[in-house]
Formats: sequence, structure tokens, C-alpha cells
Amino acid sequence: MKIIIDAMGGDNAPQSTVEGAVLAVRELGVQATLVGREQEIRACLEAAQAGDAANSIQVVHAEQTIDMCDSATSVTKEKKDSSLAAALRMLGAGEGDALVSSGNTGALLVGSTMYVKRIRGVRRAALAPVLPTDKGGALLIDCGANVECTPEYLLQFAYMGSFYAQKQLGAAKPKVGLLNNGAEASKGTPMLRETYELLQEAAQAGRLNFIGNIEGRDVPFGAADVILCDGFVGNVLLKTYEGVGMYFAGEMKKMFMRNLGTKMAALLVKDGLRAFKKKMDYKEVGGAPLLGISKPVIKAHGSSDPRAFKSAVRQAVQYAESGIIASISDNVGHMTLAADGEKN
Amino acid sequence: MKIIIDAMGGDNAPQSTVEGAVLAVRELGVQATLVGREQEIRACLEAAQAGDAANSIQVVHAEQTIDMCDSATSVTKEKKDSSLAAALRMLGAGEGDALVSSGNTGALLVGSTMYVKRIRGVRRAALAPVLPTDKGGALLIDCGANVECTPEYLLQFAYMGSFYAQKQLGAAKPKVGLLNNGAEASKGTPMLRETYELLQEAAQAGRLNFIGNIEGRDVPFGAADVILCDGFVGNVLLKTYEGVGMYFAGEMKKMFMRNLGTKMAALLVKDGLRAFKKKMDYKEVGGAPLLGISKPVIKAHGSSDPRAFKSAVRQAVQYAESGIIASISDNVGHMTLAADGEKN
Repeated sequence: MKIIIDAMGGDNAPQSTVEGAVLAVRELGVQATLVGREQEIRACLEAAQAGDAANSIQVVHAEQTIDMCDSATSVTKEKKDSSLAAALRMLGAGEGDALVSSGNTGALLVGSTMYVKRIRGVRRAALAPVLPTDKGGALLIDCGANVECTPEYLLQFAYMGSFYAQKQLGAAKPKVGLLNNGAEASKGTPMLRETYELLQEAAQAGRLNFIGNIEGRDVPFGAADVILCDGFVGNVLLKTYEGVGMYFAGEMKKMFMRNLGTKMAALLVKDGLRAFKKKMDYKEVGGAPLLGISKPVIKAHGSSDPRAFKSAVRQAVQYAESGIIASISDNVGHMTLAADGEKN
Repeated sequence: MKIIIDAMGGDNAPQSTVEGAVLAVRELGVQATLVGREQEIRACLEAAQAGDAANSIQVVHAEQTIDMCDSATSVTKEKKDSSLAAALRMLGAGEGDALVSSGNTGALLVGSTMYVKRIRGVRRAALAPVLPTDKGGALLIDCGANVECTPEYLLQFAYMGSFYAQKQLGAAKPKVGLLNNGAEASKGTPMLRETYELLQEAAQAGRLNFIGNIEGRDVPFGAADVILCDGFVGNVLLKTYEGVGMYFAGEMKKMFMRNLGTKMAALLVKDGLRAFKKKMDYKEVGGAPLLGISKPVIKAHGSSDPRAFKSAVRQAVQYAESGIIASISDNVGHMTLAADGEKN
């Protein structure tokens, strides 16, 4: 298995990406292709004392880098010689089995669609991170790729998310919940009501396990395995989730650091604290797949440290081995609507 | 000050509403008019041992009640003789200074617009709960009244929210943040980009303290005093906020209840736990104003206990005394766009 890595993407690149790749080679036994400024990458490999692992690592030079402030379309225009663009073209040409990047999400989306292409029949690719929940994790789809959606996009996201949750999260019949402002079928915008009907039809045909509308408050308790929404709402949900989590964690820390007695209290609950922290830890989860692209692309968190980056590589390996893309491709006929709004 | 109370609205009505009214009469020195089934209300007054407080409480009979499953429009149609409809008509006719209901939010919105009317020039009323944050609280507007919004609605919500945050939350120059999927002005839907421009114009004219786009993760840290969004997104944010908070609180409780040692730990941090719980407690906050209605209407939480309901009554009193409605009315010229999209 060969993983193509955009070595220059992310807050701590190329150090974290290179160290993460070394960990992945050692622990997962993969081959890695690091794309980016060769000198910088080789310096990081040396600093990381890659040793034998270096034999499984190939470096491909690319002069340009895409920053967080670059526009999404830069990847196909003024920065088409960037590490990201070069890495995506390699994936498109079959010079690797999957790709991982910590870089600019917008550019990764645009570049994946342009250089790797969508699965035939899939209207839009979606970014689908796994949210930590009480039941282990739930896939949030879409989470920022598509600010405005049609019912057909959401129907496709439901199928793609279900295949992913089944094969990667271990949910036998993934529960698909439509994120809405109430449980009743009549809730939400006209777009959501139309989506509700399409999902209900798919459920009646036995193709999706649609459990109806869900609300934000149900998410942390693991009410659904696939949380379906447009990319704008998904982005708000994800960031609120992160923000409230960070805020609570910070307040808890302050509470335990107040004095000697409270520090003792922290010791008394340290097992529980550790278990809870692990449950809620994004670094364990890895990254977010770009579902709908014809080859496996994983977006790792921008602030990934080497361990988190390695987790994203592991996720890419599992995704490449899972057969999810074939399942989406085989079922695309069920996910496309004819021009008059009727299903094919 | 006379407060009109929909005695039959909410999960624990009429017991909680009646007991809450008794507390309000005693502690805040208000007059209360309880609207609903007279016999049931009088039985609750007796059970609550209202005593002298009963002298400040008037009971007005209404036979029908609106439940959570009734449609929003029932208040003007098949249930126009409900406690909510009767209470709203009394407020509209000037038979009280403000109204509080724990009942069906949709019906309260429709009924307020129909029976009490909006402030002249205000296009839509908005529901604006106060979210607990690290800085005390932030007004979330809109939070469910308007699933689809125009830039003009949001501009009006920004003004209304600012007046409320200034006079009720004590923010001298309330920071208005537009909830978006990124900080840059180019983020979000076309509707949000247009809203951004209108807010920037208002800020340049010195009328609003617009701080730009904010993200969900900024909210708990108190980045803004007024969080501006459409009612759908606001509803998702509020419920996610509540859900993650509830989940964390539950996990913390489990962690402390595990064994004797962890129970001792809970004792050692009990002051910190109590302070944090108080900070995050919705019951202290009261309810959500319906901004844009020509008289003060407060939506109390559906599950309000007597203490929470009393807090909502206190909020109604303060709202009625604040001059916020006059400020909105005086400034409505700045908040309305001409038909061609230019400001008046």
C-alpha cells in the first residue's frame, strides 16, 4: 500500500507530516510518498532519525506551497505546481493508493474534484469527519464542502455516509439522522422536507436505515451513526461541539488546579478523566474522508501532531482497503434523481 | 406592573406556572393575571398556600389549552379560545404590561404577531435566548422563529439584539458577531455575504458594533454579545450547546460517582463544581424575549420549574422597564431597506 502525502500542508508542516509518515511506515508497514520541498523534507527525515524507515519513503519535489490564506481555486491556477496539486495529480494517475493532507481544506476539495475526479454519478464530494460520541463516533456529512445543498446532494451523502459508517465505524445498519430543528417530518426548510421524503423512500426500499430528523442535542449521546446536513450547518455543529468541549475541559482543568485539595481530587479521578479524554480525543480519530471522490482522500486536522497525522494515514489505509468507493459506485443508480425530480 | 401569565403552557402546567407566579408576586412585588382553566388554577393556588399573595393575583378563565403537538396556527384558528390566545389578546388590549408563557413556541410566535402585532417597520419577530458563556451571557438571535431569513431580517435582528444586550445584559457597546463557517468576509451563503455588507455599513455609520464573522467555537468563550444567525442555524447551535453541556455534565457525574475515592474527590472540588454549574444554569437566565413584538413577550423554557418561571417573570418586568421596544421603534428607519435593496 502506497500513501501519497502532501508534506507541506498544515500548521506544523513539514515537520509533523514527515514525522507522522515515519511513524506510519514503522507501525503500519506502508510505503509513503512525501510531496513538497525536497531539501526541507530531507532535513526533517534526518532530524526524525528515520533510519530504515527511509527506505520505504520516496520524496517528490514540488516548489510551491498552498497556505491557509490561499483561495481554494489556487490549486488549479496560480499554485498548480504546489505540493497539494502535485500529490493529487499523482493519486489521479494511479501512482499511489490514497492521499493524506493537513492543508487548506477548500483547495483540497477543489483539487480532488479537478485532478482525481468524482465517482461517476456523484454530484458533489462531501467532507465527513467522525464526531466523538457516547457510542464511539458518528459521521458528520457534510461538514463544509457544500455550503448550499439540494435534496439530491443530501440523498447521496446519506448513502455515502452509510457505506463509510458500516465499513469503517462498524455500524451494521448505520442509523441515518437528518439534522433539523425538530423531530417532526414537517420541520425545517422546503429543501429539508424534500430530503426527508427521499430518505423515507430509500428506507422503505430497504436501502437506508433512516431514523428521521434528529436535533443537535441528540448528537453527543450517539442517537445516529450518520448525521446528515448541508456543509454550512455541519460546520456550525462541528465547531460548536469542539468549542463547548474545549470550554468545559478548560473549566474542569481550572477547577482541579485551584489548590492542594482540588489537585488531590484530580488524582482521585485520574482514571476516569483519562478515559473521558481519550473518548473525546480527535487525535485518536484521525481525519475526515472526502466522500464521493473516486480514490481515497483524507483531510487530516490542520494542527495534527505526528501521532494524529499517523492516525490519518491509518485511516487512509483502511479506507483504501474497505471497498467503500466500489460500494458507492455500484449503488449510484439509487442515488441520482432524473431531471424532473423523480428517481431513476 | 402587571404580568399576564399563560398558566396552562409548559410541561408542568399549571402547577409550575402558578407556583412561579406566587413566588414572583412575593419576591418581585408584581401583580399577576393567570389565564387558563380557573378551577385548576385555583386548586394550584390553594396547594401553593398563596396566602396574601393571592390578593395580587387575578384569574381569567380560558377553557382551551394549546399542547406541544398543536400546530402554530392553532392559536388563531381552532384554539383561539385557548389560555395563550386569551392572554395575548389581553396584552394587545393593554390589560397588562408584559406576558410570559412556557408553552408551544410556534403558537406563541404566531399569536404574538397576530394579537399583539410587531413594531411598525419590523419585518419579523425573533426569538432570542441568552446563552451562558464565559463572559456571562450572549444573546442568540434568531433561534427558531424564522427558518429562512433575508439580509434585511438579519440586519433588524442585529439592531434589536444590540438594544437588548445593552439594556438587559449590561454590554455598553454590544459586540455583534455574524455566525458563519469561517472568519473571512467571503464566507457563507450569498445571503450571509449580503448581510455582512449591511452590518459593515451600519458599523461605519457608528450604529452597530459589528465585529465580523464568528464561528461556533468562539461562542462559549464569549467572543460576541449578540450572535446573529437565521432561526434554523440558531436552533442547531442552541441544541448542540445544550446537548454537549448535558453530556459533559453527565459524564462528570458518572466519573465522580464511581467509588469512595472519586466521591471524596467530588467533595474536594464542590465549590468549583457549584460555581460552574451556576454559571451554566439556564434556570438563572429565565426565558427568551420575542424581539420585534410591540409589547414585552417572554418565552420561558418548557420544562421550567417554579424558580425558573419566576426568573422569566423577573426578566419580563425588566424588559418592560427597559425602554428597549421604544429604542427599536425609534431606530426602525435605519433597519429597513427600500424595495430596490438600498437603505432608506
